[in-house]
Formats: sequence, structure tokens, C-alpha cells
Amino acid sequence: MTAADFRTIWLKPDDASIVQIIDQRLLPHDYVVHDLLTWRDADKAIGEMYVRGAPLIGATAAWGLYLAAVENPSSTFVREAATRLLKSRPTAVNLRWGIERMLAVVGDTGDTGLPEALRDEAQAICDEDIEISRGIGEHGVRLLADIAARKNGVVNVLTHCNAGALATINYGTATAPVYFAQQQGIDVHVWVDETRPRNQGSQLTAWELAASDVPHTLIVDNAGGHLMQHGMVDVVITGTDRTTRCGDVANKIGTYLKALAAFDNGVPFYVALPSTTIDWHSREGIREIPIEEREPEEVSHIYGVHDGEPLRVCTTANDTPVSNYAFDVTPARLVTGLITERGVCDASEDGLLGLFPEMREK
Amino acid sequence: MTAADFRTIWLKPDDASIVQIIDQRLLPHDYVVHDLLTWRDADKAIGEMYVRGAPLIGATAAWGLYLAAVENPSSTFVREAATRLLKSRPTAVNLRWGIERMLAVVGDTGDTGLPEALRDEAQAICDEDIEISRGIGEHGVRLLADIAARKNGVVNVLTHCNAGALATINYGTATAPVYFAQQQGIDVHVWVDETRPRNQGSQLTAWELAASDVPHTLIVDNAGGHLMQHGMVDVVITGTDRTTRCGDVANKIGTYLKALAAFDNGVPFYVALPSTTIDWHSREGIREIPIEEREPEEVSHIYGVHDGEPLRVCTTANDTPVSNYAFDVTPARLVTGLITERGVCDASEDGLLGLFPEMREK
Repeated sequence: MTAADFRTIWLKPDDASIVQIIDQRLLPHDYVVHDLLTWRDADKAIGEMYVRGAPLIGATAAWGLYLAAVENPSSTFVREAATRLLKSRPTAVNLRWGIERMLAVVGDTGDTGLPEALRDEAQAICDEDIEISRGIGEHGVRLLADIAARKNGVVNVLTHCNAGALATINYGTATAPVYFAQQQGIDVHVWVDETRPRNQGSQLTAWELAASDVPHTLIVDNAGGHLMQHGMVDVVITGTDRTTRCGDVANKIGTYLKALAAFDNGVPFYVALPSTTIDWHSREGIREIPIEEREPEEVSHIYGVHDGEPLRVCTTANDTPVSNYAFDVTPARLVTGLITERGVCDASEDGLLGLFPEMREK
Repeated sequence: MTAADFRTIWLKPDDASIVQIIDQRLLPHDYVVHDLLTWRDADKAIGEMYVRGAPLIGATAAWGLYLAAVENPSSTFVREAATRLLKSRPTAVNLRWGIERMLAVVGDTGDTGLPEALRDEAQAICDEDIEISRGIGEHGVRLLADIAARKNGVVNVLTHCNAGALATINYGTATAPVYFAQQQGIDVHVWVDETRPRNQGSQLTAWELAASDVPHTLIVDNAGGHLMQHGMVDVVITGTDRTTRCGDVANKIGTYLKALAAFDNGVPFYVALPSTTIDWHSREGIREIPIEEREPEEVSHIYGVHDGEPLRVCTTANDTPVSNYAFDVTPARLVTGLITERGVCDASEDGLLGLFPEMREK
């Protein structure tokens, strides 16, 4: 299996009233396909993180609205479902984007043929997402090819969280350049940040890189600075859940620390993003982007395998108070460049508008 | 119980051939006192981290040499044990310091009365360590009092790893100012970095702060930057395993990332240290301090409790490659000041020699 071979969300082949996803909470220990029967299942899958990753969250919400229309093909019902789905995760801008696209179809269609129209739109969102990842891969791989040529050796990429195939429909965002590099025969090795508290790095990124035979090494989130001090990282590439018009980047908590270390050591720090994660209405990320706080159990409990049995253990004393912010904001000044489906640009308003001139007046 | 009430290593009251320690690997779930019967037990306790923390490592090695003399009161035997103990952990300079102090006693004493002489010296090392922690607490608490006065509210301290009472004989280094603040009625709250991979923050620092009724909140190592961006941290205080003559600081992996975030946000970053952790013979930390690599299982497996039963779970796929560097080096330029038993100084050769002028010619 390679990254090109698997999807993260799809319509069940023999039953178009069911959407299927991978229950990503159980990886890498179990690969379980989970059925979404209603929009409420989609809401739960997003909120409880069966699926995660900005693009996949948007796609799951879109498919959720299709399921709503299957259940009750009235625009009123679908709009109510959309209102609730919008609240499932606060930080990822793709959620709003996916839902707004679907609601535009609702507005155009009315109640006649609504399920079919929403099905087509959800499918289109997924198809476009694959093309977007492909674009990011094609533009990003040139950066890795340049490093490979200059260094004449293996290119060491560090990534945080999972902005991989599992976060999108396919290829991923931060991982797309890596998969393209592998296809082009560039020697690439990925340092995988474990990514506490939910361990998306150790449980998802490591899993999908292994599935695609990309050489990688798992590290704790604390280790990246040390590796950069010693020349062991050539480039950092992460994803983002929301990017401001001026290039500030909200991503998984801890991304900011890696950006600081990259800046301090002269290591290029790139953020790979579909333009759907750009919030053209916000400018200052630290002040404007809402940061989700999640339940303490994500920190105090961890999922693993003991004697072949998957289970959760509590790693803290029972009464330890816990705080759990899910994202942080990396200021544009620390970002070397943004890798988008249209090309690579500076992390600035000028940079982004150079690639997306149609957003100049928005 | 408060930090003033417990010791981390002591001679068994009714049997002076046994040294007792807390098996810190089992906290916070189990409080188990472990007997060291031989110097080999001490070696294992250091290498396998029953005990950790630079001062406590030094003290355990010292007591280990006492046990060697009890087993065989010949200076040759004790010197051989010292050679082996020196290799138990590579980064903490206190290990060498403690062993050299004991060997000086061996040199002065010869074979007559060796166990008694070494017992007195090990006890003296522990007694002095408590006085050192007290000095660090007295000097460091003034920094917290200043913040409290300026802010007229709770002082939020962030710490990484455990440089607490459990890392020393008592009071701790980074935590000593916190315990002294509490005794003086200063409102203090500690953000406790979980400290992957061994979770000394969630398992040890949170445990001892709770035992002493110090308000605290556990966070993942990724969170500190976000908290600092939002004014939620007033000061960072960490310990150190080795400090160079010029003020570079080797400490638990990830300390450097917190120092970068503190610098970027104008948050003071202090390192609390007994002068025994200063390596007067080294200058450039990143180049000169050896960084221990530990076994991958520390990253891939985690200790916790499931249904009341303590057990270890594997959180990764079985074949995930892992790298596990235990320390990193924070350059002096990122350190606001060093809190020592003699006072607070700049993280520089001039700063350190101002407090320790006797080291000028060394």
C-alpha cells in the first residue's frame, strides 16, 4: 500500500446511504472502517476525532450534510444540521468552508433532488482536495529536490502532528512533497514528532509513512530543537488548521516551538496548506484565531496495547489538574514560506495575494 | 506532607548496611521504598532511573561507594566500583562530582575505617545538598516576590521535567523558590510540563507539588509557547544536569524550546542549580556536553494505570523506528539568570565567577 492507494472517506460501494471512514482513534493498533449513517454520526466523528485534519474535517462535514438530506430531503433540515455541525470543532476553517459550499448548493437546489446534488458536491469537494494535495506535492517537492541537490545526500524533513494522507482525502499536505519526493527517487527521511497529547504523529503519521515505505524516525515533541542544533534537520514542513491573510499559522499545539527552533538554527520552516485553510477575514493570528480547549483526559489518559489488548491507561495521579489547548499560532515572521496548490509564496499578505489575486478585494 | 517532610535517599534506620530510596519509576501510582544492598544496586538504580535528577544521582553514587566499602572495605574494591558507577549516566556532572568527593576520602583514609569514613562523607553530601537547595530557595524566592509585588496577583511559574525535591535530597532546585514562596504566603501556581518521554513532570513534579499543596496544572510539553504568547506565564524556572563555565545549560530534552519561547515573549527564563552541576572545564555546551541517547522503549511504551492495575502499554506500531535523546543544551544567550546557592547571576563566565571567584584559575 502507498499513500496513493488509500482514501480516508468514501461512499459505501453497495449502499449510498452510508459514508465510511477510518476510525483514526484506533490506529496504528487497529484498522477499523466506521459507518456514518446520519449527520449526527458525522458530527460525532468530527467532535470525537474519529477523523481529524482540516481538509478531512471539511469533507466529513460535507458528507454529513449529504446524509442529512438522505434522512430528510428538506433544505430546512439540512440547514439545521449545518448549524450544529459548524460547532463540532472551533479552529479548523475548512469546516466552515465545506459547510458553506454545501449550503450554497442547498440554496441553488431547494428541496428537489437535494440528496443527489449534495452527493455530487461532497464528491467534488473530495476530488478537488486530492487535486489540491497533488498541487502541494508538485510545488513542495521542488524544495526537497533543491536540498537534495545542494546536500548530495538524504533530505531530513521534520513534521509535527499529522498533515498526511490521513488528514486529507489523499497524499496529505505536509506529507505530499515527501510522497512526491519518494516517487521521484529523492532520498528522504522524516522525523516524526509524537505530537502530544493525542499522538497523531506516533499513531498516524508514522503509520502512513510506514504503509508507504518512507523512511522515518519517531521522536518526542521535545527533541526537534536538539536535532536542529546538530544539523540533523534540513527542513520543517507542517500543515495548518487556519492561516490568516497575513500568513500567521494556527496548527497543532507545539508547532510554534518548532518554528522558533527552526528560525534560531537557520532551518527553513514551511507550512503546506490547501487554500481552503486560509481565513481571508483574519489578519493577526494570536489575537484573532480561537484556540480550542479540549478535555483533560486527552492528556491524562493514553491509548496503547498491553499483551496484545488495546486499552487506555491513566498516566497521572487521579486528581492532577490538567489544561489542554489544542492549537497554537506561529507568527508569519517565523515561516519561511507557504506551500499551496498554486505554488510557494512568502508568509505574508503580499505573498498570498500574489498567488490568489482574486482575494485582493475580500 | 510538604516538601520539607520527605527525603529521597537515606540509610535504613535499623540496618546501616542498607540504603533506601523511593522507586521513582512507580510514582504517582505507587509509593515504593527500594533497598540498595550493594553498589551494583546503586548502579542499577541510577542507570534504570529508580532515581534521577542531577543532585540525587550524585548522592546515590556516593551512597553506592559506601555500600561497596561495607561489602569489601578495601580501597581497591571501592575504586573499581567508582569506575563502573561513573558510566551509569553520561550527562549529569554531579555523578562525577559525588564520586570524586568520595574517592578523595578513600585517598585520605586508606583501608582502615573506610566504611565509616565513606558513610560520613555520603551523609555530608546529602546534608550539604539540603543546604544548597535552601540557598537556591532563599535567593530564588526574591524573584517570585518581585513578580508578585509588581503584578499584585498569582505568580505563574512554568517548569520542565522534575528539578524538584525528588531530584535532590529535599526542596529541589527549580522548585525550591516555589516552596519558599508558598511558605512566605506568596500566591504561586506552577505549569507542569509533562516532560516526555519519561513523564517526570506528570509523574513526579505534579506528585510532589500536590503532596505539598502547591497549586499546579499539568500541560503537554507542546503547550508552553501558547501560554507565554497569551501572558499566562510570568517566569520559567528549570533545573540543569550540567552548566558550562559560560552559562550554557544542559537539561532535559525540550528545555531549549521553552527557553526560545520565553525569549520570544519577554518571559524571564531562570535556571536553578547547585554549583555542583557547573562543569568549570567546559565552555560551549552544544559542542562539548555529551548528550545521552536512551532506549527507544522509553518513547514507544508508557507506564500508567488501567482498572486499578499499573502496567505498561505500547503506543506505537511495533516496528516504528525511534530516536531518544535525553537532554538538550540551552545557550546562555537565552537564559535570564542562574539561581545558585550563593545568589542569582548572569548566565555568563563573568556572572558565575562573580559568585564563585575561587574558580577563576580553574
